[in-house]
Amino acid sequence: MNASDESLTSSADARTLPQSAQPPRQRGGSLESRLLHGLLERLGSPPIEFTLWDGERIAAAAEPVCRVRILDRATLWSILTDPQVRFPDAYSEGRIEIEGDLVRLLEEVYLASGRGRPSALVRLLERLRRPRLNSLSGSRQNIHHHYDIGNEFYTLWLGATMAYTCAYYPEPDTRLDEAQAAKMHHVCRKLRLRAGESVVEAGCGWGALALHMARHYGVKVRAFNISREQVAYARERVAREGLGSQVEYVLDDYRNISGRYDAFVSVGMLEHVGVDNYRPLGSVIRRSLGSNGRGLIHSIGRNYPASLQPWIEKRIFPGARPPSLGEMMNIFEPWDLSILDVENLRLHYAQTLRHWLEQFEAQGERVRQMFDEKFVRMWRMYLAGSVAGFTTGTLQLFQVVFASRDNNDVPRTRAHLYA
Amino acid sequence: MNASDESLTSSADARTLPQSAQPPRQRGGSLESRLLHGLLERLGSPPIEFTLWDGERIAAAAEPVCRVRILDRATLWSILTDPQVRFPDAYSEGRIEIEGDLVRLLEEVYLASGRGRPSALVRLLERLRRPRLNSLSGSRQNIHHHYDIGNEFYTLWLGATMAYTCAYYPEPDTRLDEAQAAKMHHVCRKLRLRAGESVVEAGCGWGALALHMARHYGVKVRAFNISREQVAYARERVAREGLGSQVEYVLDDYRNISGRYDAFVSVGMLEHVGVDNYRPLGSVIRRSLGSNGRGLIHSIGRNYPASLQPWIEKRIFPGARPPSLGEMMNIFEPWDLSILDVENLRLHYAQTLRHWLEQFEAQGERVRQMFDEKFVRMWRMYLAGSVAGFTTGTLQLFQVVFASRDNNDVPRTRAHLYA
Repeated sequence: MNASDESLTSSADARTLPQSAQPPRQRGGSLESRLLHGLLERLGSPPIEFTLWDGERIAAAAEPVCRVRILDRATLWSILTDPQVRFPDAYSEGRIEIEGDLVRLLEEVYLASGRGRPSALVRLLERLRRPRLNSLSGSRQNIHHHYDIGNEFYTLWLGATMAYTCAYYPEPDTRLDEAQAAKMHHVCRKLRLRAGESVVEAGCGWGALALHMARHYGVKVRAFNISREQVAYARERVAREGLGSQVEYVLDDYRNISGRYDAFVSVGMLEHVGVDNYRPLGSVIRRSLGSNGRGLIHSIGRNYPASLQPWIEKRIFPGARPPSLGEMMNIFEPWDLSILDVENLRLHYAQTLRHWLEQFEAQGERVRQMFDEKFVRMWRMYLAGSVAGFTTGTLQLFQVVFASRDNNDVPRTRAHLYA
Repeated sequence: MNASDESLTSSADARTLPQSAQPPRQRGGSLESRLLHGLLERLGSPPIEFTLWDGERIAAAAEPVCRVRILDRATLWSILTDPQVRFPDAYSEGRIEIEGDLVRLLEEVYLASGRGRPSALVRLLERLRRPRLNSLSGSRQNIHHHYDIGNEFYTLWLGATMAYTCAYYPEPDTRLDEAQAAKMHHVCRKLRLRAGESVVEAGCGWGALALHMARHYGVKVRAFNISREQVAYARERVAREGLGSQVEYVLDDYRNISGRYDAFVSVGMLEHVGVDNYRPLGSVIRRSLGSNGRGLIHSIGRNYPASLQPWIEKRIFPGARPPSLGEMMNIFEPWDLSILDVENLRLHYAQTLRHWLEQFEAQGERVRQMFDEKFVRMWRMYLAGSVAGFTTGTLQLFQVVFASRDNNDVPRTRAHLYA
């Protein structure tokens, strides 16, 4: 055992990794190992070790905290050509194995690649890159891809509320269902809902927030969604809970919202809207709200304009793109809407995703029976990568509260949110 | 007395207006009166009545809440050519008189003109319009114009703290000095200052916040300012208060900030920076903060990109331009800084300005002796117009909290601000 092996095994982080017989290569060696070194350098030298099919080991200088076993040469070449898409694909297909914690691995990659600030060229290219079209029909296809794969699957791991958005943890040990309820209260308090008011919701998921608003705040809600499965579930739920006179679920696009409301709310839809549609979305908001109007948009975001991780956009969320706060302003500024409050709940989403991932893993066998092993691994990669995105600040979560310009009936301070 | 006069005198708002013998003209009449009608229409028909030197009265259809007496024909023509600049100039020079409440008059004008949303052309022109240059020397001249007119003048009406920025009113009846102290605590809590930490302040006014941070939070502060008068005052103050070992006032531009700090803070400087300098400002912030760094910028803002009211930019704040939140993002996005929190304190600034205006009026005779009648009227117009800007949502006040991207040592919730 040499010095580098000692440091590997004595590292607290690496203790769970099984020992290897050979020392890892730092440089030189086969063509493949040199190319893998190049890849690690381009990634910012994260503390990761690759192990090849023949036992060869390649690591950046830092102590590895995770080991990636590549099972055959074709997989290696595939990863080298397009690591952002092919690495998670290879994991999904069982052509690589991870020793150590998958979340930790992805965090190290995100942290290493985020150390330099994005160059002007990268930022320009990111601005120009566009996800799949979100026309009326494009959005229907994109939403169908993710949300219509079966309500039963989602019931396995989303918890009782079926809320599929960032929860709010007043205490670090708040449980998932309570944190989802706390999020819905937080949203309603920010909107200052009063009994008898009307609310329009754009993108309502399985209907939890609309029900919550009706039950706890006495408002009437029209909730829009283009996912057939979700709307069917929500309609069944509102009937069962006897709130049908207060909540209407509408199977239609947010662009077709009509009527006037006291409040506009959208939790977890903006990621699917596409920046080109922000101005029209603002127009919908403006025409929906009177002079006492106010609203809230809750969305995954970025620190600067950038497209979604390409594998996630390709396999998980076609057409999706979380905006920077500057991009979000294109919803509000053309229509003279005032921003009252922005809160970043990034670490709450990391915690939410950890809870989902735990429940997902606990139900792994059920999911395998419903779909297949590839599906399980793909979704594990998506959920783990999302945890890592939020813990490393690659992803943000913004709650933005806004109001009509001359609405002076707004709270003087935010103390009421914490009373 | 006819119907329109009855409605005028029976209106609660107009009760203080003296009655006129003649009915106001709704249309037609002299060339001047037709042009004034045109001006009222372009302004969105605010409920204002003009009275000319010969007693002729011109009003929009709505019941007037204020009366503007134009004392001679030359003044009228001057106002018609450039109302935004010439109207307040004419008021400063005593060539028009206002009957009724000046703040109310300006509110009505802002509300009427804000009813339509800004056209695409107006927004484009606003984007292109640039205030006076804020190069290193340009900024020195611009700041000198406003802040170096004599510390004694400002002591007359700013209150004991000498804070010349939006205060924070936890209760509606909080007094000015307490509200300024509450603002400084609010800022420090948002920054989560800990004893022994270092803070750099960009634009420190007469030094109140730096002293407050040192005294109440045990931090060391380097505070930058290019106003000679303000720095002289602040240095005298820190020596008198025995905090010289903790606070250093530096007579220099924010662009020359060097060193590393735990926190960056800037309250009321951004208005003078100019949008072209936002990216360089972000660079200063980025290089000043380590990975646990966080910061706060407090600034007047707008709902969409727009230049400052042109008379204010010409006579009061040369080079100034409050940004929209989207424009502010040009400080943060190029440097991968995370926005944690945005709070809009617009109505707090309206209240602060009301308090300043009251104290200013109470000291009117002293100010007249120090300067002249024109100065008193000019500053009354500026303070009253600012109240109206904030009450009508023409102006916003944003406090933006940010942090380095991967700083996870941030509070989970904002409850600590209200504990």
